[in-house]
Order: sequence, then C-alpha cells, then structure tokens
Amino acid sequence: MWTLAAETFTPQEITIFLLSLLVLLGASRILGEVMRRWGQPAVLGEILAGVILGSTFLGGMFPQYMQVLFPADGAAALALEGYALLAVVLLLLVAGLEVDLSVVWRQGKAAILISMTGIIFPLTIGTALAAAIPTWMGKEPQADLLPFALFVGVAMSITALPVIARVLIDLNLLKSDIGMLIMSAAMVNDLLGWMGFAVVLAMMQLGVEQNGNVGMTLLMTLAFVVVMLSAGRWAIHHTLPSIQAHSAWPGGVLSFVIVVVLLAAALTETIGVHAIFGAFIAGVAIGDSSHLRQRTRDVIHQFVTNIFAPVFFATIGLRINFIDSFNPVTVLLVLAVALVVKIGGCYLGAKWAGLSKRESWAIGAGMSARGAMEIVLGQLALRAGLIGEELFVAIVIMALVTSMISGPMMQKILQSRQRRSLKDLLSERSVIINPKSENLEDLIYEMSRRAAELTNLNINAIALAVVDRERIMHTGLPGGLAVPHARLAALTKPCIVLALSKQGIDFDSPDGQPARIVCLLLTALDDPDSQIEMLSLFAQTFERPATRQAALAANKPTELLAVLNLAQAGEGGTENV
Amino acid sequence: MWTLAAETFTPQEITIFLLSLLVLLGASRILGEVMRRWGQPAVLGEILAGVILGSTFLGGMFPQYMQVLFPADGAAALALEGYALLAVVLLLLVAGLEVDLSVVWRQGKAAILISMTGIIFPLTIGTALAAAIPTWMGKEPQADLLPFALFVGVAMSITALPVIARVLIDLNLLKSDIGMLIMSAAMVNDLLGWMGFAVVLAMMQLGVEQNGNVGMTLLMTLAFVVVMLSAGRWAIHHTLPSIQAHSAWPGGVLSFVIVVVLLAAALTETIGVHAIFGAFIAGVAIGDSSHLRQRTRDVIHQFVTNIFAPVFFATIGLRINFIDSFNPVTVLLVLAVALVVKIGGCYLGAKWAGLSKRESWAIGAGMSARGAMEIVLGQLALRAGLIGEELFVAIVIMALVTSMISGPMMQKILQSRQRRSLKDLLSERSVIINPKSENLEDLIYEMSRRAAELTNLNINAIALAVVDRERIMHTGLPGGLAVPHARLAALTKPCIVLALSKQGIDFDSPDGQPARIVCLLLTALDDPDSQIEMLSLFAQTFERPATRQAALAANKPTELLAVLNLAQAGEGGTENV
Repeated sequence: MWTLAAETFTPQEITIFLLSLLVLLGASRILGEVMRRWGQPAVLGEILAGVILGSTFLGGMFPQYMQVLFPADGAAALALEGYALLAVVLLLLVAGLEVDLSVVWRQGKAAILISMTGIIFPLTIGTALAAAIPTWMGKEPQADLLPFALFVGVAMSITALPVIARVLIDLNLLKSDIGMLIMSAAMVNDLLGWMGFAVVLAMMQLGVEQNGNVGMTLLMTLAFVVVMLSAGRWAIHHTLPSIQAHSAWPGGVLSFVIVVVLLAAALTETIGVHAIFGAFIAGVAIGDSSHLRQRTRDVIHQFVTNIFAPVFFATIGLRINFIDSFNPVTVLLVLAVALVVKIGGCYLGAKWAGLSKRESWAIGAGMSARGAMEIVLGQLALRAGLIGEELFVAIVIMALVTSMISGPMMQKILQSRQRRSLKDLLSERSVIINPKSENLEDLIYEMSRRAAELTNLNINAIALAVVDRERIMHTGLPGGLAVPHARLAALTKPCIVLALSKQGIDFDSPDGQPARIVCLLLTALDDPDSQIEMLSLFAQTFERPATRQAALAANKPTELLAVLNLAQAGEGGTENV
Repeated sequence: MWTLAAETFTPQEITIFLLSLLVLLGASRILGEVMRRWGQPAVLGEILAGVILGSTFLGGMFPQYMQVLFPADGAAALALEGYALLAVVLLLLVAGLEVDLSVVWRQGKAAILISMTGIIFPLTIGTALAAAIPTWMGKEPQADLLPFALFVGVAMSITALPVIARVLIDLNLLKSDIGMLIMSAAMVNDLLGWMGFAVVLAMMQLGVEQNGNVGMTLLMTLAFVVVMLSAGRWAIHHTLPSIQAHSAWPGGVLSFVIVVVLLAAALTETIGVHAIFGAFIAGVAIGDSSHLRQRTRDVIHQFVTNIFAPVFFATIGLRINFIDSFNPVTVLLVLAVALVVKIGGCYLGAKWAGLSKRESWAIGAGMSARGAMEIVLGQLALRAGLIGEELFVAIVIMALVTSMISGPMMQKILQSRQRRSLKDLLSERSVIINPKSENLEDLIYEMSRRAAELTNLNINAIALAVVDRERIMHTGLPGGLAVPHARLAALTKPCIVLALSKQGIDFDSPDGQPARIVCLLLTALDDPDSQIEMLSLFAQTFERPATRQAALAANKPTELLAVLNLAQAGEGGTENV
C-alpha cells in the first residue's frame, strides 16, 4: 500500500556515504589549509587530497579500500555524486556573486580593452594550435575537431576571479588603481569566457545526441543571459527588500538565493549547456543587487568554500591516475601556451590603453592565474569524452601552476611587498604567558632569552641592544601596551616575542598604566621599513579594547594566536544596518 | 582505461535532481514563513509543503508529474535521499548544539525532577498503553511487541527543544526563572529521551537482522555517549583554539565541526543505532565548548535551518497519503495521551520541587511541545516497519498540534503578553514616505488620514485628539524623532503610522533638530500599558544612528520594513573578539 523510494539506503550505505564524505572533506580541508599557510591557493591542497586518496596513490595501492570507501556504483556513490554536483553549482554561484558589474563600468575603456585582448589572443591562438596539432594537444580520436579546438581555446582564456582577488589582497593591491583594473578586466573576461564555454558545451552535448541544432541552443543561451542580467536582475533587486521585510532574516534571503540559483541551473541544463553556467549567471544577477547584505554573502561564502567546494575538488582527483596520465609534452605545451598567450594578450591590451610597460606586465601576470574554473571546465569536457585523461591532467596542472606563480610574478614586477599580519610572524614558541619577571629589565632578559632560542643569536647581545634603546626613551604605549625593540646587524628577518603579564610592568607609558601586553621587536639593521611596519601592526592589532581584553584572557599561547586570528578576520565583513 | 563512477547522472537526471530540490525547498520555505507569520512553528508549513506536493494532493491527482519530478528510483531519487539524510544529520547537530549542560547544573534539583517525571510518566504510560492495546495504537502485524511499545513510550517522552526555545522567546520568558527551568528540564529530557530512542533503534535493527545481541549494541552506545561527552568533549574543547589559531576563520572551525559530526554519525550507524543519534551527541559535545564562537553557530544554524532542514521535512510528507492514512481514533488517542501524560508528569515534578500550582501547570504546558524530533523518530520507525502509516500520521499530527498549542496554553496560564516589535505592528500601508506636509499640524492630519483608513475611525476625531496632546507639550525626541500620540476610546488595538520626512518638521525637540522619523501612535483608552510599550519600542528601535540613517534612505515602505526587520535581527548574535 505504501512505499518509500524503491531504492533506498541500507545502514551500510549510509555509513559509507557519511564516511566517504568526511574523509574527503577532512583531507581536502587539512591540505587546503597547509597550502594556504605556504602562501598557495587552497584548491591546490584540495585536489591533492583526492589524488592521494584516489587511484594515483592509496587507491592504486589498496584497491580493496577504494572499493569499500569510494564504490563506483550504488546508493552511496550516487549520493556523493549528487553532493559534488550541488557543490560545483554553489561554487559557481559564489564565483558569480564576486562579479560586480558597476566596478567594470567605472574602470571603463582600459578594463574592456584588457579583457578583450586577454580573451581574443588565448582563444584564437589556443583554438588554432589545437586544430593544427590536435594529437599533441591530447584530442581523443573519436571527438569532433571543432568543439575540441574551441574547448582548448576557451580553456586558455578563462581567468580565476577568486584566485586573482586573493592574490591582490595578499599583495595589498586590491583597492589600488592597478588592482581594480585587474579585477574589472577579470570580471569581463570571466563573463565572456563562460559564454564561450556555453557555446562549446552546446556543441558537445548536441554532438553527442545528434538532434536539434547548435544555433537553437546558442540562441536560447543568449536569451537566458540577456533576460537574467536585465529582467531577472531587476526582479531580484526588487524582490529582495520584500523578502527582507517579511521573513526571518537572513534565512529568507538565503533560501531565496538558493532557489533562484537552482532554477537557473536547471534551466540551462535543460537548454543544453551545463547547470553550472546558469548558476554563474544567476550569481552575477543576484550579487549585483545592493540589497544583498554582506552577512548573507558571508554565510553563503563560508558554507560553500568550507563544506561543499573542497569535496568537489577532492572528487576530481579521486578516479584519475595522475602519474599514469602524466604526459610531459602535453603538460609543458599547455602550460607554456597558456602563460604566453594570456600574459602577452593582456600586456598588449594594457599598453594599448596607455599604461606603462611595468604596469602592463603586472596586469598580464595578474590575469594569468587560472585556478578552479579551468578544472571545472576540464572535468565536463572529460566526462563528455571531448578530451582524454592526459589533456585533463595537463589542464589541472596548468591551472594550479598559473595560480601559484601569478602572485610572485606580480610581486617581482611591481616590487610590492606582501601584507603581513602580526599573527603570521608569531608561533606558539614566541608567546610568553605570565612571565616571571616583575620589572622592566628582568622582563627584557626573559623575552630576549626566548628570542635567542628563536634566532640562535646571543641572548646578551639582544638584551643589551634593547635595554640601550629603552634608556633613550621608554616604549610604553597607552592602553597597557609596550614595544621594546632593537635593530640587530646579525639578524636576517624580523623576530617578535609577545609577553602577557597579568600584573603589568611599568614601561613609563603616557597614560601611566603598567604594560600588560609587551611586544619585543627585533629587526635587521639594514631593513628600517620592517621595524615601522611591525610597530604599526602591533598598535593596530591591539587598538580595540575588546581585543586587548580577549588577549589577556588567554591561558595558553595557542589561545592567544586564536584571538589574533579572530581579530584579523573580524576586520572585514561587518554588517551595518 | 579510465572510468568515472559506473553509474553517473544523465543531463535529464541532473535537471530532475535540481528541480525537485528547488521545488521542495521553495515550497517548504514559503509555507514555513507563512506559518511563522501566523505565530506557528515553521516546521508545520514545511511538512505541509510535502503533503501538498506529494501523494496526498498534487501527486495523487497527477501521478505523471509525481513520477517525473519525484521518481521513486534512479540517480536523482538517490541523490535527493542522500541530501535528506545529510539534512537530518545536520538538523540533529543543531539540536545538540542548543543543549547547554552548564545551564542544567545551575538549575539543579528542580530541573532534574521535572525532566525525570516528564520522561517516566510518558514512557511508562505510553509503553503500557501500547502493549495493552497495540492494534488501536497502530502496531503493524509483523512488528515485535516490545520494541513497538517502547517506541510509543519514547515518542511520548521526547520534547522539542527548538520549539520550546522559540515559544519562550516569543513570550519574553526565555531569561526568566521559569523559562530557564523549562529549558534545562527540556535539555535533560532530550538527552535521556534520545538515549531511550537509541535503545529502541538497536532493538529494531537487531530484530531485523537477527544476529548479534541487543545488550552488546546498548553497551557500545552507552560507551559512545560516555566517551563523547567526557574525552570527546575535552578533546574538542582543547582542539578548537588551535584550529582557530592556525586556519582561516571561521572556515576551519566550520569544517572541523562537520567532520566531527559525520564521524560520530558514521560511528553510531555502524554500532547499530541511527546516524542521527551520533550527530545529536556530537552536537552536545561541540556546543558545550566555550571556544565555539557565536558566529560559527550562526553560520551553521542559518544554513541548516534554511537550506537543509526544510527539504527533509518536505520529503517526509511526499510519499504518504495523509488523507487515506488518517485514522481519527489513533490520532485522537495518541494526541490525548501525549498531552495528558506530559503535562501531568511535568506538573507533578514541578509541584514536588516546590513550585506553585500556576507555575507547575505552565511548565507542563511548555514541556508538552513535541515538534520536529518526534517526526524524525517516527520516520525511522516507519522505514524499519515497526509502525504503520496510520500511526506515523497520528504522530506527525500529535507533534504539530502540541507545538501549536504549547505557547497559547502557557500564555493563558501565566497571563503573560507576547513580546511585540515595531515591525510586527507595521505594514506597507502604515508607512508614509516623503509626506506632502511641511508643518506639524498638516503632517498630523496627513498621518491621521492614513490611520483613519487603517482603523475605520473618523479622521477628525483622531487628528483632534493628537493635536490636543501636542498642545500640552510637543513630542519631539532627540535625534530627529517625534511621537505624536493619543488614546482613543473607540480603538480596540494599537495603530501606528510612520512617516519619513527628508526635509524634517519642527516638533520642538530638546536638541532643536527637526523630526525626520515621525511615529503616530494611537492606543485604546483602557490600555495604558500598550502606549508605554509602543513608545519605548519606537525609541529603542531608532536608538542607533545607523538604523535612523538606513531608515531615511528607504524609498519605499517595503524597504523601510526591511530595515526594521534587519535592525531587530541585528540585536542578537553579535560577535565580540
């Protein structure tokens, strides 16, 4: 009389689904964090997690474990696939939310020029090359030449907006003229690149199914984009206030955003281009509304990048053997072409728009980062049989390598320095909770001892230099802070020791308060900038009384580092009603 | 050479998966919001969405549509099942996070007593009744009597912590003595209730599989709970700071929480009790750590209650025909017993602990809300074949009805009044943006006209009373606010009209500023409390300059309501580092 779904989960399948999800999420997040700490994009670690867990290493060595934890069929496999599908749809939503059309208009001609040459060059040269030497570029024998060549062209042209934004933030360039120019050019680039991708997808799908015609699909895709970015954008912008007025906040908006994205995704999937294209365009339309609050964006961003996206990237490497399918010729070819055409194209556009040589090279370097989106695209082409495993591996490697070197290249060209935070310069070993000393000189010796351990310098040399400096004028600051410091010839990079004294030690501060948070600051003699940078970082970090209070409540070095990490994260993304 | 998962999604299946998800999410959230606006629990609307979309109505009328959008098997069906599985696991995580063991210790004896009698009564009477008249209570012929009877007992005992918290907040009682007592008793109740549930589940599973023994499963379950709430809780508490110190925040913590919950869920599923039990206990262990920040809880809570949980509740009603399976005898029996044993049990415990008669009844009424958890439990029993569809429908109805009447019962007994917010008293029609008037009297007439439309009173009667009041002393407040008001005999409930004047109108405010936000306040002559309440609500709402600014930027009534909704939501859940 009554039935649930005919196929349902056995307890074993439930266990496997949960286990595979947790292993993929745990491993990818841990490796992602490791990469991030090494100054690399997190996606690198997330893909690596899949490579290690999958056929390339563990799965290849222990096929039995692979069959149990990541079965190729059955309910658990399909549920995991469904999760990965949702993950990539939501990832494209987040990518779309980051596109801000108004920034593009403000940047005007230069942004348009750079994005145009940054697309046309890679697209034409990539397509031409793939058409000329398809076998070297990894074409599958049964695939059609035109969609294959176009796919390679598109794969060369799409940039990686989130990676570029991250690199610019790290270099402290996001709000600079050149940073805004790169961001706007990358936005236009992505928008056009994804439309080109829709074309390739339509050709692929229809090539497979042999019915309908490409023209119709393209027309419908174009209509979708136009309607979504005009009427759709207008409707979303005018619907958001009434959702915010009449539903629990931010819950109502959150559900609304997801429903709109799923609808757009289902629509484009029906048209014949992939669901993720619709999700991206919907993201652009939604993100454009000034009614979408920062907190809503935050919740979506946090959940997608920490719960969904890592699992998707980990599943990518799971069933592919990256060693067997590593073809050095294809990898080098793809990588070299990708770098040359993108940097060259953007350089020409920037020069044309009247920028200096150095700025133009920097823009080319910045725009060359590919990152996650190329990989998403590659996976679809792989599944559709358009490309083989060797080209896919080459594309993954190209995407990762360009993302890794884009930042260092820009840094070198602009000779800008990476923005540091106090927390990055501290470890558990450089924090002293409750120092034993009760006066200034004792404390400086106690802190110098720690600094000596960290730098392998002589403790007396350090302490003497610092005490000498204190003799000129004491380094107490208002609010219970003090910054004893010295510049040492023997030092090669800055060294910081932080001490938290509950009782407080007199540092002759202007407000007469004893210092409770004391920062010993040692920098190289030939690097005056670092000293000023560190001093201002310290003062900035402990500017807020709440941060000082939270720091003093720490009972262990780790807890103090957590406070500093949170204080840093708290700087952005605050919500004003 | 290379294969993806053997079974994978066709474009049609991708479309169906996305469409079914979006239809379930959209419909359940809309009906959930409607219920919330009517002062009812959202879960009522979420289940109703499934009932309307599924076999009971639409699916019954158009079986074809049901087969296409919600197929019973295939990749889309399994992916949706996987999503619902994750949803219920995450829902139990959120429920567990709300259990605060320290609150329980502070309440001490009374809380323990109430929760004990609140469990023992329903458990014994429910079990005895089910054992005595199993057929009337809806036992399936092939099910074993003991697990069935125990299930009914447990189903009678578990409360609904989230529903109770919601009701107490609405009645402004959460932080009162009686509110904290009810919350603590409910927490202990839930903890014990879920352990009882684990017992029943173990008996069910083993009854099905006929191997191993119940004792072993129970022992392992008990060991899991003890380890998780002692060593596990300790480990989580001491791991959180180093995750917060060494990973991007709050992303690292978010992933950590999900991984721990998935691990606990997989573990309990392997032991032989359901995954959700592990998720609940993990939630208790994680939520207990003072290192878990409010913002992390917020992100989890928002995502789970707005993206995951509604889909789960909607799927519950999807494949069950609530009309065919509606057995009035079972429904009435279950509902009556559930109310009597729970209210009675808690009343006795409260009286025993020395509370007054009225307070004891109020506690019984508060504890009687069942809500979502009963339904989760019922679904598991249904799937295991322990109960039939009729009893399941009766349990769903019991859970919903008790949740709906618990608040009104408490309100009646305590004669407390529901906490109102300014926004609840406003609609688009009661807001005037840019009034035409340029002086005080004109404005009062313009606002009185709107008030007359809203209340069907005479415009002159309103305006005269307000102007008379202004003659005694003008009602301007500092910060550009003004509150002209009057009490009218003909009025039965308060009426508010809000006007935003960009130019400002002189209301003789103490700081000399013209009033830009003017609130006309009409209350009944025999209800002096309401006038004071509204005045203070108005002043509180517009206390912050940011809120005043945002309000004045509104171009439409809906935008103003959105600002008020957000200002209200912003009050709670702020993060201090």
